[in-house]
Amino acid sequence: MKSVMKPALLPSLCLAVLPVAALAQEVDQTPLNAEIGYIFTTFMFLVTGFLVFWMAAGFTMLEAGLVRSKNVTMQLTKNIALFSLASILYYLVGYNLMYPGDNWLIGDVIGALSITSLDPVGLADSKPDLAYASTGADFFFQLMFCAATASIVSGTLAERIKLWPFLIFVIILTGLIYPVEASWKWGNGFLADAGFVDFAGSTVVHSVGGWAALSGAIILGPRLGKYKDGRVMPFLGSNLPLATLGTFILWMGWLGFNGGSQLYMDTAANVADISRIFANTNMAAAGGAVAALFLTQFLYGKIDLTMVLNGALAGLVSITAEPLTPSLGAAILIGAVGGIIVVFAVPMLDRFRIDDVVGAIPVHLMSGVWGTLAVVLTNPAASFLTQLGAIAIIGLFVTVTSSLVWLALNATLGLRVSAETEINGLDSMELGMEAYPEFSIV
Amino acid sequence: MKSVMKPALLPSLCLAVLPVAALAQEVDQTPLNAEIGYIFTTFMFLVTGFLVFWMAAGFTMLEAGLVRSKNVTMQLTKNIALFSLASILYYLVGYNLMYPGDNWLIGDVIGALSITSLDPVGLADSKPDLAYASTGADFFFQLMFCAATASIVSGTLAERIKLWPFLIFVIILTGLIYPVEASWKWGNGFLADAGFVDFAGSTVVHSVGGWAALSGAIILGPRLGKYKDGRVMPFLGSNLPLATLGTFILWMGWLGFNGGSQLYMDTAANVADISRIFANTNMAAAGGAVAALFLTQFLYGKIDLTMVLNGALAGLVSITAEPLTPSLGAAILIGAVGGIIVVFAVPMLDRFRIDDVVGAIPVHLMSGVWGTLAVVLTNPAASFLTQLGAIAIIGLFVTVTSSLVWLALNATLGLRVSAETEINGLDSMELGMEAYPEFSIV
Amino acid sequence: MKSVMKPALLPSLCLAVLPVAALAQEVDQTPLNAEIGYIFTTFMFLVTGFLVFWMAAGFTMLEAGLVRSKNVTMQLTKNIALFSLASILYYLVGYNLMYPGDNWLIGDVIGALSITSLDPVGLADSKPDLAYASTGADFFFQLMFCAATASIVSGTLAERIKLWPFLIFVIILTGLIYPVEASWKWGNGFLADAGFVDFAGSTVVHSVGGWAALSGAIILGPRLGKYKDGRVMPFLGSNLPLATLGTFILWMGWLGFNGGSQLYMDTAANVADISRIFANTNMAAAGGAVAALFLTQFLYGKIDLTMVLNGALAGLVSITAEPLTPSLGAAILIGAVGGIIVVFAVPMLDRFRIDDVVGAIPVHLMSGVWGTLAVVLTNPAASFLTQLGAIAIIGLFVTVTSSLVWLALNATLGLRVSAETEINGLDSMELGMEAYPEFSIV
Repeated sequence: MKSVMKPALLPSLCLAVLPVAALAQEVDQTPLNAEIGYIFTTFMFLVTGFLVFWMAAGFTMLEAGLVRSKNVTMQLTKNIALFSLASILYYLVGYNLMYPGDNWLIGDVIGALSITSLDPVGLADSKPDLAYASTGADFFFQLMFCAATASIVSGTLAERIKLWPFLIFVIILTGLIYPVEASWKWGNGFLADAGFVDFAGSTVVHSVGGWAALSGAIILGPRLGKYKDGRVMPFLGSNLPLATLGTFILWMGWLGFNGGSQLYMDTAANVADISRIFANTNMAAAGGAVAALFLTQFLYGKIDLTMVLNGALAGLVSITAEPLTPSLGAAILIGAVGGIIVVFAVPMLDRFRIDDVVGAIPVHLMSGVWGTLAVVLTNPAASFLTQLGAIAIIGLFVTVTSSLVWLALNATLGLRVSAETEINGLDSMELGMEAYPEFSIV
Repeated sequence: MKSVMKPALLPSLCLAVLPVAALAQEVDQTPLNAEIGYIFTTFMFLVTGFLVFWMAAGFTMLEAGLVRSKNVTMQLTKNIALFSLASILYYLVGYNLMYPGDNWLIGDVIGALSITSLDPVGLADSKPDLAYASTGADFFFQLMFCAATASIVSGTLAERIKLWPFLIFVIILTGLIYPVEASWKWGNGFLADAGFVDFAGSTVVHSVGGWAALSGAIILGPRLGKYKDGRVMPFLGSNLPLATLGTFILWMGWLGFNGGSQLYMDTAANVADISRIFANTNMAAAGGAVAALFLTQFLYGKIDLTMVLNGALAGLVSITAEPLTPSLGAAILIGAVGGIIVVFAVPMLDRFRIDDVVGAIPVHLMSGVWGTLAVVLTNPAASFLTQLGAIAIIGLFVTVTSSLVWLALNATLGLRVSAETEINGLDSMELGMEAYPEFSIV
Repeated sequence: MKSVMKPALLPSLCLAVLPVAALAQEVDQTPLNAEIGYIFTTFMFLVTGFLVFWMAAGFTMLEAGLVRSKNVTMQLTKNIALFSLASILYYLVGYNLMYPGDNWLIGDVIGALSITSLDPVGLADSKPDLAYASTGADFFFQLMFCAATASIVSGTLAERIKLWPFLIFVIILTGLIYPVEASWKWGNGFLADAGFVDFAGSTVVHSVGGWAALSGAIILGPRLGKYKDGRVMPFLGSNLPLATLGTFILWMGWLGFNGGSQLYMDTAANVADISRIFANTNMAAAGGAVAALFLTQFLYGKIDLTMVLNGALAGLVSITAEPLTPSLGAAILIGAVGGIIVVFAVPMLDRFRIDDVVGAIPVHLMSGVWGTLAVVLTNPAASFLTQLGAIAIIGLFVTVTSSLVWLALNATLGLRVSAETEINGLDSMELGMEAYPEFSIV
């Protein structure tokens, strides 16, 4: 039932335009038995899907480690709540809105709304498309991308946004904004038609989270005392082991994020491509981390761990638009540029008094743009102008819609906690529950 | 050699009674090649098995985060010790006691005792049952369920039980009590014969841990000062990021817990069913979390993070008895009821002065009972009375045997630490090692 | 292109010498279809590879939990930096140096230097060796072993070594020392020719990290104040939940470390062997933990959690040289000896005033030697003298080369931070960033 809407465009596109003529002579591209191919691909989605699920824990630990201790419980609450709400919204509307098949409300722009239903138990009486994977596995995998988009937002706006307005934004982001823009590319909408290449979502996922975060940060304003008399006050992360753990979790989960986006594991060629993607994704993270390591040593005379962590994450975002075609060396360099972007962009944002608590805008938005443009360096199928146009269109759409939602929420419920709450911490004032109730705080 | 005792009942039962006649017309239910099916199923057990292993870390972090800092080292010690002892006991007696095949000591009730042996290296000279999986993979997977049962107990009884009596209980639970009652269902014992449905163990695993914890909590009594002058004193968890991390780990591991319980991945139908289970399990957790989120906001005017975490876990327990047949929407609702149970049951237990440190009784016992009964809502093969009867029989058996063990331990070694030890903390008094020796405690 | 150098020796060696004659009668050892076997093995490497990647987070958490809070940021920084540098070095020189195929610089001793290149996208125009796995998957998996070797070193030398000299050592270790000695065994060099058996690297990985750490610890000297007036001062780990989490992560990752070292999952026999390895690896960890549990209770009258954690890790190292041939019971005993070694070796090292902050020398070096010798107990293909000789040769090579590097670094950059830095903590003095800036420290 869902075979018409599976996101099959990417690999076929890539393969079609590779500068090789006699592909598929040595290795048969057709799986020898359709059912075996179906089992391979479906199980691959389950495995890479649980890796991407794990990223939800990674974002949570990263953010819990980078906020001050008085706001940690709130950050934990937001993250588990946003993942749960994203799951429900993606089921209710997101999945079918993102993969409309032939069922568009407005052709190639907005899909029809409907609830997700899975293949019947035991595939009874159904004619599954054995050339792809089970609906359940595809849904499970794609859901995680939707949730990741929302996770990006929570870090930037930490320590000052009210809980419920944030969660209402999450509902709209995961139920409408993300699925609509994602359908343009992965649901075979107009950006796919135009030849836009974004393998696993440098733009479709990461920059979207970044734009939503940026518009929120501007409307919400900086934390009290962050910018004082023209100086930037350092608000230190309260628990760096947690932030580091979160980074390792995200690094691990990203292997599934990019690897699973190959979408097929039914042939030797596909599994070899997934292997390339795993290796390249790891290399880009390493490149981003090492770039931030050397650069902070060079610029500041000492290494900045939070920059190294964000450098690794920026490397991961940078390779996400095209993790398949680069060589290992190119992957290191693409990731390294991401790391460099982070080191320069974090203070730059502060100069504009845009207060991004965890650095999500440099990591997910700026490196996402870089990664999307960098596709043209290694994938001859990509056009620079198309990439740029798609970045602009998606950026405009998300910024406008997000801003409208933020402004509407601000005008009604109010987005920001009171100054008293902000100073005393959201945990005690809003939730009445401290994250570390026994530890004395300096 | 082990082919006679593989737990093949579940899927065949489910398939046999589904309200479809012409199953297996579209998709051939027989794997095209037995060896390929064997590789698929065996590898599936290894992957889902390491996910369930990971739950041991999840329980550990959850409990370490929810106890007070003076008892954290003890909780860590108990958890790594119980997992290690469970591994050894399950090897020595548990596995063959749970899957006796034709080798019952008392027919369909108590199996014979014997040590586990694996398939020979390289399957040399053996005739493996290619229709199932390797003994090593099956043992590895099933062992994790046994260990999970013991993990449930440690949380409830934290902060006051002595280490060695607890570990002796673990030995008896994992070597005898769990394998015997589990054999009734999964070893093709009398509850399987009676048509009891418990896909992955809402009753067989979770309520069993819950009954053992409940009987222990009653015999052990509440922590000093917990109930004073008719009031319930809040004893706050010392590290909520750890508790949240533990919840995410458990959520991730549960995908393997329920998914692997399909027991076969040799056909398109089986892998599609595992996909349904992954998606439904995730949805039930989301439903439980969101239910607790809204309910605590509504009841108390603010969200309670520990309720949300336990709500997610309760959702997971609730779906465990039948993660396959529900639709995604039904899975959300089944999980949501679990979340609601937690919010009401936690204060209710306090009213009875039953001191459950981490909320394991509402999560694993009460939601386990709910989940087992809820099977009849979506699986026409289940009978309400049979479900109820099996819950009662297993509950009675575990409560009686656990209580006898607890009472015997209390009469001999003593179960409870001294008041002085309890007040000063088990870490410094019993272990001489603090979990956070450098942090000043309020 | 890489088919000649794949590390195929191990399984064939093992199978060839097993005391069974009529192997492969019941089960066909040849995969029925080469492409399906290729997909199975390649995907197996990706899954076990991400498990081994996860060990990087495990080492990080273990070390961050066992150092004092004033040195935690430094330990986090070292770990993410060493993993990133190892990735890049292994790509630049390590991988091809370790698997030279026919491309030796000095026959069977030192391979030629070259950069790693992967299979082409879509395997276009290539003739992949369908009997093994994709280059990308093999590279990804093997890279993780190289990084693990470096992780071992960072724990021992914590709290006093300068960051950059340590990272320079990591570059030489992962780019030269490890790949060269590993080529002797896994690259079909002279130790492989001699019949040395080391399935997953008790010697090749763990003892190598251990020798490098030991030589560094001797040259670097103990931490200030550790040994005073003939007494050993306890320097307590600052965060035992993190150390426990790290241990669980390593335990989980080790399933992939040992399991993936089977190198093939293309037949029923191979996947059954991987299952044996998973089960045995888990059992050895349990055996090591339980041995340390009982032994510390017996020796000291109370259980020492850090010994139990290191006992589990020592069990894992002990089984790593031969996780396939032991029975489950033998695996428990082999692991238990590792746990016993740890309990006795930790104070013994202190008597020699060798300051090993996290216990990596007892765990990785001493248990690695034990595990390598223990191979002869269950694998008739191994010769005690060959095992001993290989341990000595690799130990000598690594100790000499490491010592030269340590001494050269000490003479030029200096290895050790100033006394002032050491007393105030490396975090504030070297990095200007505390791990827990808000928590009051006793």
